[in-house]
Amino acid sequence: MPEIILSRRNEIIQSAIRLSGSADYRRERGLYFLEGARLCSDAACSGVAVQKLLYTERAGEKYAKYLSSVLKTAREVYLVGPQAAQALSCTKSPQGIFCVCEMPRKIQHIADLNRSGPYLALENLQDPANMGTILRTAEALGVYGVILGGSCCDIYSPKVLRASMGAVFRMPVFVEENLPSAFLGLNRRGFLTAAAVPDSDALPVTKMNFSVPCVLTVGNEGNGLTEETRKACSVQVTIPMLGRAESLNASAAAAVLIWEMMRNRAGGAGL
Amino acid sequence: MPEIILSRRNEIIQSAIRLSGSADYRRERGLYFLEGARLCSDAACSGVAVQKLLYTERAGEKYAKYLSSVLKTAREVYLVGPQAAQALSCTKSPQGIFCVCEMPRKIQHIADLNRSGPYLALENLQDPANMGTILRTAEALGVYGVILGGSCCDIYSPKVLRASMGAVFRMPVFVEENLPSAFLGLNRRGFLTAAAVPDSDALPVTKMNFSVPCVLTVGNEGNGLTEETRKACSVQVTIPMLGRAESLNASAAAAVLIWEMMRNRAGGAGL
Repeated sequence: MPEIILSRRNEIIQSAIRLSGSADYRRERGLYFLEGARLCSDAACSGVAVQKLLYTERAGEKYAKYLSSVLKTAREVYLVGPQAAQALSCTKSPQGIFCVCEMPRKIQHIADLNRSGPYLALENLQDPANMGTILRTAEALGVYGVILGGSCCDIYSPKVLRASMGAVFRMPVFVEENLPSAFLGLNRRGFLTAAAVPDSDALPVTKMNFSVPCVLTVGNEGNGLTEETRKACSVQVTIPMLGRAESLNASAAAAVLIWEMMRNRAGGAGL
Repeated sequence: MPEIILSRRNEIIQSAIRLSGSADYRRERGLYFLEGARLCSDAACSGVAVQKLLYTERAGEKYAKYLSSVLKTAREVYLVGPQAAQALSCTKSPQGIFCVCEMPRKIQHIADLNRSGPYLALENLQDPANMGTILRTAEALGVYGVILGGSCCDIYSPKVLRASMGAVFRMPVFVEENLPSAFLGLNRRGFLTAAAVPDSDALPVTKMNFSVPCVLTVGNEGNGLTEETRKACSVQVTIPMLGRAESLNASAAAAVLIWEMMRNRAGGAGL
């Protein structure tokens, strides 16, 4: 029988709330917080190290199927009362399933890229909902791994995790503060590094040849890529104008660009 | 010198707050509420009938450029105090520019379609952020008009207006409760009505010929299109599987489908 936590002042609850709200605290502890039956189950099934599982009695009945996969791997299990569950939750009607998970111990960098990709690099992407949606889109369309360049928002924030639908657990993630110098290294290794720019002088993405090792690079929502990163890329690509394509939002532009990259790579495969 | 409103209890403020929060009240009054310098200016420049403009003294200085276009067309103008502005706003730090606008008097239906499109039809789309993003994407990529089928969320809600970046003001919008019967009529008029489905038996969107009068039809976030609408469409299209494409979110899937439709129509145009 798992230990029961009723009070929202319990220190396990308080620590989980801090993990949910603070990127600094997440980094300091090497842990992050998950909410929701599907997301917790996705994490467990994807090999994420689940340090703590917390769930309400009602969730135990209602989400038994999702819970079973988490129960198998979680190192500590707690039953929580409704008040404690409400304190943990970001929603008004919590499902009542929560996990505390360990971040991967080893942070991978661009030097660790060991496949021809395709990779998606994001530079200074700030909005968690955009970040989550773009990660979900990248996974859905078959991108192999994601590179986080400059200072992106924390991919372990609850908003990113939720919008990514668990893509964060399944895709290789690489971190690189200095994209320009890392890209120069990739160019030397024969990678195509493509900078997405809203610039009619750039090569239309429909004219590209992505059937080589490649990294598609998308910049900040408002400001695009930094000058240095643009210059370090081996080619500049753009979405050819049909309507007012410059006014696509970041995640829609990323969807079109990733789609075109994958469509081009699939080439003869009957698409 | 415009009239000054200081109290949040003023009935103009109270009515604007109700317009912001209630779709029923919006329909009853034929009015909607806008917030933000850029959005209010977009509305005025797009020929929207602005019934009331409300702004703070500070906004009058900071956003003079945006304000000037609204001042030219607004029928009533009010200066509001900081407390009234805070009561009107959905954000913590309001820009301090607000409008009450009139909905178009005549609601257009599918029978009014007078161009070959391309059109985007949305059925039972519920999430305002998705709706707004999809409208923005459709406009950006050059879709001519949007058809709202079944019971979609209200396009005049503040969330849709914000996410659409004003596309609502600029695109022709058609409303049709009963899509299936309207689509049968469109088919007889020679339109291609294409149902987007997550079904590997459907025609890959990359194999379609969209260079005819056409309507691309996208369904509800969780449930897709209704059986009746799917059957009424002249063809079923799908995003061919590259990764786990069935797990694209609604707005990313719409972006890829719209992009492919427009790419195909542009055909020889050098894309």
